[in-house]
Order: sequence, then structure tokens, then C-alpha cells
Amino acid sequence: MYKSLFKPLSTSLIRNQHTLKHNVNLRVLSRRANASVTIPKSQKGVVFYKHNDALKYEDIKVPEPKSNELLVKVLYSGVCHTDLHVYKGDWTEIDYKFDPYLVGGHEGAGVVVGMGSQVKGWKVGDLAGIKWLQSSCQACEYCETGHESNCTHAELSGATHNGSFQQYATTDAVQAARLTNPKDLKVWGEERFDEYMAKVSPILCGGLTVYKALKASNLKANQWCLVTGCGGGLGSLATQYAKAMGFRVIGIDSGDEKEKFFKNLGGEVFIDFRKTQDIVSDIQQATKGGPHAVINLATSSESISLSTKYCRTNGTIVLVGLPAGAVVKSDVFDHVVKSLNIVGSYVGNRADTREALEFFNRGLIKSQIKVVGLSQLEQVFEDMEKGKIVGRVVVDTAK
Amino acid sequence: MYKSLFKPLSTSLIRNQHTLKHNVNLRVLSRRANASVTIPKSQKGVVFYKHNDALKYEDIKVPEPKSNELLVKVLYSGVCHTDLHVYKGDWTEIDYKFDPYLVGGHEGAGVVVGMGSQVKGWKVGDLAGIKWLQSSCQACEYCETGHESNCTHAELSGATHNGSFQQYATTDAVQAARLTNPKDLKVWGEERFDEYMAKVSPILCGGLTVYKALKASNLKANQWCLVTGCGGGLGSLATQYAKAMGFRVIGIDSGDEKEKFFKNLGGEVFIDFRKTQDIVSDIQQATKGGPHAVINLATSSESISLSTKYCRTNGTIVLVGLPAGAVVKSDVFDHVVKSLNIVGSYVGNRADTREALEFFNRGLIKSQIKVVGLSQLEQVFEDMEKGKIVGRVVVDTAK
Amino acid sequence: MYKSLFKPLSTSLIRNQHTLKHNVNLRVLSRRANASVTIPKSQKGVVFYKHNDALKYEDIKVPEPKSNELLVKVLYSGVCHTDLHVYKGDWTEIDYKFDPYLVGGHEGAGVVVGMGSQVKGWKVGDLAGIKWLQSSCQACEYCETGHESNCTHAELSGATHNGSFQQYATTDAVQAARLTNPKDLKVWGEERFDEYMAKVSPILCGGLTVYKALKASNLKANQWCLVTGCGGGLGSLATQYAKAMGFRVIGIDSGDEKEKFFKNLGGEVFIDFRKTQDIVSDIQQATKGGPHAVINLATSSESISLSTKYCRTNGTIVLVGLPAGAVVKSDVFDHVVKSLNIVGSYVGNRADTREALEFFNRGLIKSQIKVVGLSQLEQVFEDMEKGKIVGRVVVDTAK
Amino acid sequence: MYKSLFKPLSTSLIRNQHTLKHNVNLRVLSRRANASVTIPKSQKGVVFYKHNDALKYEDIKVPEPKSNELLVKVLYSGVCHTDLHVYKGDWTEIDYKFDPYLVGGHEGAGVVVGMGSQVKGWKVGDLAGIKWLQSSCQACEYCETGHESNCTHAELSGATHNGSFQQYATTDAVQAARLTNPKDLKVWGEERFDEYMAKVSPILCGGLTVYKALKASNLKANQWCLVTGCGGGLGSLATQYAKAMGFRVIGIDSGDEKEKFFKNLGGEVFIDFRKTQDIVSDIQQATKGGPHAVINLATSSESISLSTKYCRTNGTIVLVGLPAGAVVKSDVFDHVVKSLNIVGSYVGNRADTREALEFFNRGLIKSQIKVVGLSQLEQVFEDMEKGKIVGRVVVDTAK
Repeated sequence: MYKSLFKPLSTSLIRNQHTLKHNVNLRVLSRRANASVTIPKSQKGVVFYKHNDALKYEDIKVPEPKSNELLVKVLYSGVCHTDLHVYKGDWTEIDYKFDPYLVGGHEGAGVVVGMGSQVKGWKVGDLAGIKWLQSSCQACEYCETGHESNCTHAELSGATHNGSFQQYATTDAVQAARLTNPKDLKVWGEERFDEYMAKVSPILCGGLTVYKALKASNLKANQWCLVTGCGGGLGSLATQYAKAMGFRVIGIDSGDEKEKFFKNLGGEVFIDFRKTQDIVSDIQQATKGGPHAVINLATSSESISLSTKYCRTNGTIVLVGLPAGAVVKSDVFDHVVKSLNIVGSYVGNRADTREALEFFNRGLIKSQIKVVGLSQLEQVFEDMEKGKIVGRVVVDTAK
Repeated sequence: MYKSLFKPLSTSLIRNQHTLKHNVNLRVLSRRANASVTIPKSQKGVVFYKHNDALKYEDIKVPEPKSNELLVKVLYSGVCHTDLHVYKGDWTEIDYKFDPYLVGGHEGAGVVVGMGSQVKGWKVGDLAGIKWLQSSCQACEYCETGHESNCTHAELSGATHNGSFQQYATTDAVQAARLTNPKDLKVWGEERFDEYMAKVSPILCGGLTVYKALKASNLKANQWCLVTGCGGGLGSLATQYAKAMGFRVIGIDSGDEKEKFFKNLGGEVFIDFRKTQDIVSDIQQATKGGPHAVINLATSSESISLSTKYCRTNGTIVLVGLPAGAVVKSDVFDHVVKSLNIVGSYVGNRADTREALEFFNRGLIKSQIKVVGLSQLEQVFEDMEKGKIVGRVVVDTAK
Repeated sequence: MYKSLFKPLSTSLIRNQHTLKHNVNLRVLSRRANASVTIPKSQKGVVFYKHNDALKYEDIKVPEPKSNELLVKVLYSGVCHTDLHVYKGDWTEIDYKFDPYLVGGHEGAGVVVGMGSQVKGWKVGDLAGIKWLQSSCQACEYCETGHESNCTHAELSGATHNGSFQQYATTDAVQAARLTNPKDLKVWGEERFDEYMAKVSPILCGGLTVYKALKASNLKANQWCLVTGCGGGLGSLATQYAKAMGFRVIGIDSGDEKEKFFKNLGGEVFIDFRKTQDIVSDIQQATKGGPHAVINLATSSESISLSTKYCRTNGTIVLVGLPAGAVVKSDVFDHVVKSLNIVGSYVGNRADTREALEFFNRGLIKSQIKVVGLSQLEQVFEDMEKGKIVGRVVVDTAK
Repeated sequence: MYKSLFKPLSTSLIRNQHTLKHNVNLRVLSRRANASVTIPKSQKGVVFYKHNDALKYEDIKVPEPKSNELLVKVLYSGVCHTDLHVYKGDWTEIDYKFDPYLVGGHEGAGVVVGMGSQVKGWKVGDLAGIKWLQSSCQACEYCETGHESNCTHAELSGATHNGSFQQYATTDAVQAARLTNPKDLKVWGEERFDEYMAKVSPILCGGLTVYKALKASNLKANQWCLVTGCGGGLGSLATQYAKAMGFRVIGIDSGDEKEKFFKNLGGEVFIDFRKTQDIVSDIQQATKGGPHAVINLATSSESISLSTKYCRTNGTIVLVGLPAGAVVKSDVFDHVVKSLNIVGSYVGNRADTREALEFFNRGLIKSQIKVVGLSQLEQVFEDMEKGKIVGRVVVDTAK
């Protein structure tokens, strides 16, 4: 350890600034104070015993953190389309874990109430986030290079490790997201604790994913970023992150309401795919040659392939979503002569998470949410399947 | 040439959209129309016959464009500190050209009124900018890789080629900056033609230089950018470009007025170097570890060396100005263990120029100028030497 | 121009070191010496009057260089598959130019015997290369950023501008490749002038194209580079460039002869696609997880799509060839979770050209050629169509 | 965890291929087999009780691995100049740990004979390397982004944590280097086990450091890399790594013997600083404009500052060594106009370590060592101080 060179950089100081908000009302005391913490034996959670089976809101046991894990009292959890895919077993590539049931959820925001013996750098009362990437091996070439999302030994919250659709969840301490207490944030403040925790939850997957995709686009400030599905939940996050990163945003979606919504978030040009006569030409005229990058949130094969037509020469097409069975097709001649780049962007790593949260903490990202009780999750899934969800639904684990 | 693949990209269409503003009142006709253009034989300009000699505002001949050159009717020209260095002959490295006199100036905004036989892609009536980098060889490894500013055969406006402190100036067509007619810009408009031309002139060197420096910093959106001398002319441009690129700006300067000025431009944290007890600590506290990059506009050796102390680990220190005789010193131990990067950033290339102008055209950069007559240039130099200039002085060639 | 700072960098000195080899026996004198040069009025060339029409070896007029052009006495020209595509009119995207005939060829190596009035940096007697990218506009965003190959106003040798299948050809001086006289190269020498000129010709398109593709792959030294079609003409060049760049090369092709050929050039692992039971598994085992990049020289849709299966996570798939009508398909799920990058790489720019030639000049790239007379071009095309060509055929314009 | 997508990538398979060499003759059994391992209570080591105090070769206790640590039976350890700096307390920035003594050494190659309860991905019998960076916090922004060497909570082998100058040493399992059993390496083989272990030890700091510096240089294949002090221990490693990465190497040192040594390792141009009349000119002539990067292994202030003079425009100057009190000075004018980059490169991260070892494992790096007994360490330090060491000294812990 260095003693003087980096004095002002002390991360332990920075880390330990978070103190427990009183209105969370946890009867816990710091591990360091050698005091006991009262954690219940059972809790409420939503489970399913096999894919497509009934979703049950029931009493289940509170998990014990392993030596490397935090025990997080989950306050809110966003509901992501991925949760539905997992529930239905759409992705055969994943080695789901039922023991005997599986608890979904991977956008959990909560408070640390316990931890395993080997955990460093966390204390009871810290605010923590549960992400899709629950843990990685820390030994492979991907983990070594900051591509831990690509680790083949990764465990995934809500899919191979019980997730955040329960009141108490465990998660690896190295990968857990570090949330900042809103009382320490200028644009938030102590009195907005609950609002902060509810709204930060969709950042933990939705926000992180679009932010990572925008980084993967290699855009520079002032260049054009096209977002397909700009009026949806991810689209609204992508529009705001893109704006905050200095990009000019052009969006594709349909309807006047979505146009208004998009422009309020900082979008500059809106293409209504139901009204345009020639979408390629409209996009290229508006951007004087096509967008420098395309963030594909609309995940149909047709929509993705179309993006190779209107993208600017030397531009980057980012694939983000995971539509089961979709295929991207591109004409080789165009791909070569226009020197396009089609890049897959998976969820972000720890640095991306920290950065995505910093934008949110500064108030630059408005998270559009609707809060319902955890007990209503089944209904949320039904609405999601029918395409009835506008913005992001967040479940309150207390209800 | 491709016939269909890139239809919407037609640059000739984009280029030719500019038509001549009537109030410029040039009695010129397009070369394509085979009509004659009336250009006077003599004009007003400010010349000097050797370094530190008298600056004379006198009648000189209008230059003839060579086959590769534009003849530009200069409307406005910014006055840069570099012009003073050239006048005084501070930089012995440059091969100044007196024939028999030298005309300074390298921030000229004007209208194309003639051109050599080999010029392509320009027409009479287009708006053009004259930059420090007047021409480069187009054959060396630097020109080939977009580092044309580093070309050893570069000619420099106002130093090795007569510059923009005259009513008619010549400049190489490939390097000339392409200005947009304000009538085609949403945030400007036809009636603000003169304001646009006056305000765009400092972008051609000052704006370009700080924008290039910000690109050289490798900053990502949301990271901290420190600007030394943030309250000066270059500092105000750097603050605005940094803000528009998504960076958080911390500035060093002195006085309440400069602080207010800085914050109005989007600056977030102001460090008053006359008031701080421990500047390194103050900067590192405000930025939780130091700025990710430092743009050194204050060019004393001490100020530059100090920046190696407060810069964040893995950060980048950008050298921009050209103080005669200054030296940057850095302790090797810190430099290595903190893995700092000290990088020299010279003026931008053609792409940087186009990009810097796009930010300005969108109204994101307010150019703080004071307009005086070209005939008053000597006074401007005197004020500049005494440090009395606030913001940028722009000379109007008609007066 | 700087007078002292860069003294040792004088590019004009470096450029002017080339003097005319005597055995070329040109009766030319330098323009500077104000002497006359004897250039014939007519010459031999191979022309066609429309696509798929007869190829005629006949007397045609020697072209006059425009003000920006060189007149090059072509000594040798490689024959590229692209020449066949052009002849057949396979690519409808190109605006071919018949006036009244078209002369193909874009790998021409020769001697400068004349030039237009505006040409700088060249002199009679210099050695020059004619490339596919004959000229670009120098004004668009692609030209400004070193992506001149993507310029929409680009003119293409042998397709929109008469090429190198003639004894005297014109080409833009800025884009013309600068060849080094072999007498100035340690590993070549004066006596190998003809061999050098013949062997360097395929570097001007084939070598340049694979080198650019290798740069586009973003590989680092010691990583695995897979080359499909490693035993072909382009494949042999790709293998050697990859080796010289420090990469480990794994190749796909078929037959013992090709395996031996490949390994002699520095290839490390050969996959015989006719013998392997499970090509994906074989490739991933040999490279412990898949190659970090794939250079797709085999251009069938199937072969390209297969490369998305065996490529390493976070790897780059480079598309190089221009097969008419081919499509690349990729499963979105894999593309995202493996975070693949599919990038189109077109021909290189001027810097890539200089660099590709430097490898060749150092003797690191052996060009496998067979020399025939220009008069036999029709036969070469026939053999090429039947897949009978091994290595590269180069035509000698004297025969 | 994914079940099918990445089958061939199984890192656990790759990791577990190493089995224990019989001639190491360790009486150990795998933890998995629930069997006991015989580790002695005391061992031989070289300790000092305060800076500059006597170096004592004595019996000390065998350390116990903490839950996150490996216990490594050290076979060989390189002796680095850093060890001497630590012994003398030259760097006041480090928070050295005496308990009550300190054991130096940070280039230890050995066998895992035990481990803490939380260690994953290692088993008894694996070969492991002990590096300068013994552990990092895994939570700060530097650890998150692969800059763990810059972690302010880093512990350093041989300085803040007892190092490899003892027979049994502990080290964090995440940071420990993974060595490959030479029997699994084509160019090594089972019978060269001892030679491999002795020669790999200097790679763990010396090799890693120069490799990281070469990566920091941003050189491309075929560009010129200048190595100062090319005839020394680090210089010989830098020359070989540079060559293997495809760079052309020019070296500075003195004497015919060093020139011969350098050229045998693949160096191309040797500059004898005692013989040259004008070193800047000689270097720029040989490289046609200066090297694209300079690796500063000669660490005097003068030598480093000189490198700013001969470095190529747009080039990179890498600072590597940690000379106590040295300063780098650069003229701002040159720095800016030549757009130089002076970058500090500290020791590499885990990915750099893996990569540096891969070059060595392929036989591309010859490690020039002299093996002496651990008991002779004091003599080695004396020789080092007098500049008498040629190549690298490696101590055998059995003697």
C-alpha cells in the first residue's frame, strides 16, 4: 500500500460515506461493532418450479450469504423483459437452476444487512444493487480484461442464482453494484430515499445495457445516434444517455404521443415508421448521410437488417436485445464498401455500472416507472407479454 | 464513382446549398456562368516589414490566387495571441516569409470571390475560413494519416503566407474551412449574417485548438475535465466545448467575476488560485480523486508542472499553448506509478475543423468577442501585450 | 514551413532519392530541366467496349495526364478477381465509364514519364503504382478522416478510369502509390529491378487489401488470426502479413499441397475442411477458445456465417471480398452474448498503402506470381473463371 | 452459467491440465482428496529488520495462507533492481511492512502446496508465480478497469507483503500468475522443468514490465521502437518482446559486445552513445524521421529528456523505470508542435501477465540468467549496486 502518493484518493473513505437512512428502519448494527443483526427466517418471494409453471407469491426461506456474498434487503426491483424470457425458458443456452424453485429478478435495489466472512469493502447499511451478472470467475481471460459479462462461468441473477423478486437476496460482493445514498447527492436528498431506490432499480439492467451499447458504438460527441424503439422503456433510457453523452439523437417509433415523449427527453428527430414513405431516405436526409451509429432496441430481424441500409458509411450498428431466434442479415457488398461494423453489446461490467449510475445520480436520467406490489408480478408478466407495458414496472417487495 | 449505393450522401449537393447573402453586396458572378468578377487591384491591410517593426495599415495589392487557391474577401478576423508571437518573432523555429512585408492573421471569415484553375468543390459565393494551417504537402506520412498539422512542409497563415489582416486573402482550397451560410442554420438565420461571420472567426483557431485538445484528452462523457485559465478567451471556449461533449468541467482562475462567467458557461467547480490553501487537495476533493484530464491553457512552466500533481491516476495532461521557452517537468516516480499521460496537442486537422464548426453552428458555443476596425490592430496588440484583453478581439476589415 | 525543428524529417529529400534505373531505358528528361520527353502517340492495351464483350488487345492512343495526374509507363500489372467482376459488370452499384472502351487493371507498377502542371512531390523517373482507388474528392468527411476509400466521388482504376492493362496510364498524383527503387533496398538490389516491379504489383491491391483487413481486425501480437482460403493468392499474402505483424495464423483450406504451402509461409495450424469432422470444435481446440479474429477470404455466404460460430468471444470477423449477392447471417443471441464484431474492410488508404509496401520492401512478403504477356489477358480471365489460377498472374505490358 | 454456447471455452478444463511434475518431489496431496499435506514449520529465507540493515539468511517460520491466499513453494526467484531500492528504502512513498522483518523478492516461480478456504480455480500442484502486485482491492475504479496496478490499496510482494526470497511464500490467488507446466509446452518439455522455472522467474516482473511498456507505446507492426539501455537485462527482454510484436528495434547502449548481443536478439540498428557525434541525427537518419516510440530503460533525467528530441512527430515516449528523484523535462513548444506523448507505464495487470508468459512459453523470449543460491543474496545486492550484474540473477531457494 502506498502511504502518501495518493492520499486524496482514499476509496475506503469514499465508500464509507454512506450511512443508513433512518426511515429504512432496519434493526441492524455494524459487523465491526460486534453487534447482532435480526434477520427473519422466512420472507415473501415470487417463485416458479419449472418454466411456464405457475408464478407463486409465497413464504420462502431467507437465503444465507456464502463467504463471498452480501445479504441484501431488497426494497424495489425492476421487471425486465429478460425475466419473462427466463420464466418461459426461451433461451436454451442457459443452465437454469431450480432448487427446487427459481426466483427471478435482476434489477434489485436494497440495503446490505449481512455478509459472508470474506467480504471486503462493504458494511451493513450500505446500499447495494443486484444485477443480471451476479458473479464471474475472476480467473478467465474475459474477467481479466473487463469483459466479465462474457465469462463462461458467470452466474446470472434470476436465472442461475435466485434473484431480486424476494425480500432478501444474496449476491456476490465483487459484482454487486454500489448505490449512493441519495442524501449525499445534490439533486436527490434525504427525503427522496424511496423514490431514489425505486427509480434506480431499472438502471441496474436497462440503464446499464443501453449505456454499454452506447459505449460500444464508438460515437463521438455531436454525431448522430439512431435509437430504434425510442419510445419504449429502454428507448427512453437510451435517448437520455445518448443526449448526456453529447450525441444527437434520432429515433424510430410510431405515434404522436411517443414523438412528444421522445422530444421531451432530448430527442432531436423522430421518424414515424408508419408514416414515412421511404424510411432510408428520410433518415439519411435528416442526418446528412445517415446516423453514425444505430442502437437496435427493436429486435425484429427485419428492423435490424434495415439498419444496415440507412447507417452511415463507417458507421456502427449495435445489437443489444436478445430476441429468441432472430438473425441479422447484411449484404456483403454494402457491408464492405460502406465499411460497416455490426457489434454485439452484452450487459456492462463493473466500471460500466458505476458510470451508468453516476449519470443517474447527477439527475441526467429520468427513469419512467410504475410501482406495483411484488405480489402482482404475475399480472405484470401477462401485461408484458401482451405488449401493454409503457415505461418500466418496478415491484415494491413490501407489498 | 458509385452510382446508387450512396445516393443520399451526395456531398456536392450539400456543399452547393450555400448561396450568396445579398447584403454582402459583392458584384461577382459564378465562374460556371462564365461571367466576369470585379475584384479591385488594391486593398487595405496591416503589414510589417520585419519583426517588431511598425505595424502599418496601408494600401497593398490584392493577391492573385494560385491554381490551388481560393481568393477570399475577408469580412472579419479574430486576433490570436499567436499573431503577437509572430509579429515579435518569438518562435525561431518558423521560417517567416516577408515579400517584402508580412500580413498576419489566421482566423479569417469571408466569402469566396475567385479561385485558381485547379480548385474543385468550391464556387464563388461560398463562405470560407482562413486557418493557421494554410496548406500542407498531402504526400508525407502526417498528411496521409490526418496529422497534416504536423506536416513539415505546412504553410502557416499570417506567418509563412500572408494572412487575414487584409481585405482579400488567398488560401489553399483543400485546407480552407467550409463555413455554413447562417440562413441555413436553425439557430442563426439570414438576418444574423454579420454576427455569425464575426463570431465564427475565433472558432477557426481558438475554438479549433481547444476542441482538438479535448479530443486528445481521451475523456469520456461524465468524466472531469480541468481547464486552467478557464476565465480567459480560450478558457471560455474550452469550457463550452467540454460541456457540449458531456464532460464535467472544473476550472482554475481568479476572481468572482471570472467565477460567475465560468459558471454561466456551464462550468461546475471553480478553484480560485488566489484563495485556495491547498490547490492539489481542493481539486482532488472536488473531483473525488482528481480530474481525468487537464487542459493547460495557462502556460507557465509552474502551472503545467503542478497539473501532474493533481491529475487523476491514469489521467491525461494536455499541453496546448506555445509559450516561448516554457518547459514541462514531471517526477518520473509519480509519472510511472500514476501512469500519467502528457500529450502535446497542436491545431486540429480538417475533420476537427468541420466538427468544431458544427458545435458552433448548433449554437452550443458562444463566442465572446469585441469588434474593432482592422485599422486599430496596433492598439489591439498593445493591449494584448499588457494583458488587457478580455475575451477575443475581432477586427472588421471594412473599418 | 518550419525551418529547424524538423530538419531530419525532410520528406522531399527522402522522396527524391529515387533515381531512374538505367535498364528501364526511357528516353525521358526531367521537367525541371525544361527538356522534352518522347512519349509515343499510340500504345498496346486490352480494351472492351461493353461488359462481356470481346477483350481486344489493340493499338490505342496514349492518354494525356490532366493537371493533377501522372503519366505512368506501366511495366507490370497484377490481375485481380475484381477485374473479372468489372469485365462482366457483376456489380451494378458502379458507374462504369466507356469512352468508347474501358481498360481494366488496378495493380500497375511503372515509371513516371510525365505529369500535369499542378503535380507536386513527384518527378519523372520516380516509380509509381496504380491502385483501385485512383482518386478521391479530398473534401468530404471520409477523405478528411483517412477513409478516402469510402469517398462517394472516388474514381476507380480499371472501372471508372482507364486502368493498368495498357502501356501508358494516367492516375491522380495524390493517390498514386510511391514505390521504392529496389537499388535502395537492402534485400532487393539494382539487379532485381524487373523482379521487384513484377512482384510488387499484386501488393498494390491484393497485399493492400489483406493488410488493411488485418488492421481492421484489431488483433494484438500473439493472438490467433484465422484466414479462410489460406492457400489461395490472397490467402498467402494474408498469412505472411499476419505472421509479420506478430499474429499466430490458423488457416482453412483443403489438400496436402496447400497445407505445405501455408506452413512454409509461417502458418501454424491448418484445418482441412474436407477432412475435419467438426470444424468448429477443431478450430476452438487448436486455438483454446477460437481465433481472436477471422479474415474471410473465402466469400461464400455459408463460410462467412460459419465464422460467427467458431470465432472467439469478443472476437472480430472481417469481411473483405466482394462476392456479388452474398449475405452474412448471424444469430443475434450469439452475436450479443459473445459480443462479436462483424466489420467490413474495403481497400486501404494512402497510409495503409505505404505501410503494406514497407513490409514488402523489407522482404517479409513473398509475392507468388506467374508472369504472362498482356496480350494473353483473355486467357487469364478464362482460367480465372474456371478457378484454374494458382497464386497471382501478372501481365508484362511489353509482350 | 451457460450450458452450451461456449462449450469449447471451458477455462476450468484448461486450468486443470497442469499436473504435478514428479521430480519436484513434493509430499503433498490435493485438498479435494481430503488428504493431509506435509508443510514444514520453518524454512530458510533472507530477511532484514530495517532499511539498510544487515541481510540475514536464517530460519524463519513458514507463513499461513489467509483465506484468499495460496501457499507457494518457491523454487526460483529473480532479483530485480526494485528489490535493492526497497532494501535501501529509496522510495518514501511506500508503506513498508516489517513484522518484525521484511522478506524481499517479487519474481518467484514455484508450486502451489496449500491455499485458503476461499480460493477458487487453483489446486495443489499447480505452478504459480509471485509478482510485485501481490493483491489489489477489487473494488476501486482502477481495479474495475484493469488498472489494478494503480490501486491505492495494492499490496506489493517484497515491500508491503513478504516476498519470494524464502522457500514458502503466500500470495493472493486472484493476482498470482498462472504458469504452465513445461511438459505441456511444445518448445520446452518435461525434462527442462528446472530450467523453465528458473528462466520464467524474471518474466514475472522484468518481462511483464517491458511488455506492458511496449503495449503502452501504441506501436503498430513495422514501426520503429527505440530501447535505451538495450544491452542490459531489461533491454534484452524489451528487444525480444518488441521483435516478437513485429516492431523494428533500434537500441542505444555502448560497446561492441553489447552491440553483438543486441543484434543476436533481433535488434536492427545499434547506436553506441560513446561513439556517435550527433545522437539525435544518427537516430533520425536510421529511422527516417525518428522512432515511433521510445522505451526508456536508461533512467537518468538526461537520457529521458533527450528522447523528446529524437522521437518522431506524433511519437510516444514511455517511462518505465522508477529512478528515485529523477525528473523528465520537455520543451513545451516541441512537445506541442511535434504532438508528443509522454506516458508512464507501471507493471502490467493480470491480462498483461498472461500475455507476457505466452510469448515466453512459445520460446520467443530468451531469458538471460545466472543462478546462485538464495544464501548469496547479499553478494548479489552488492554487485548490483556496483553495476556489475550482466543479465538477470536468479536465486535458487534450495541453496
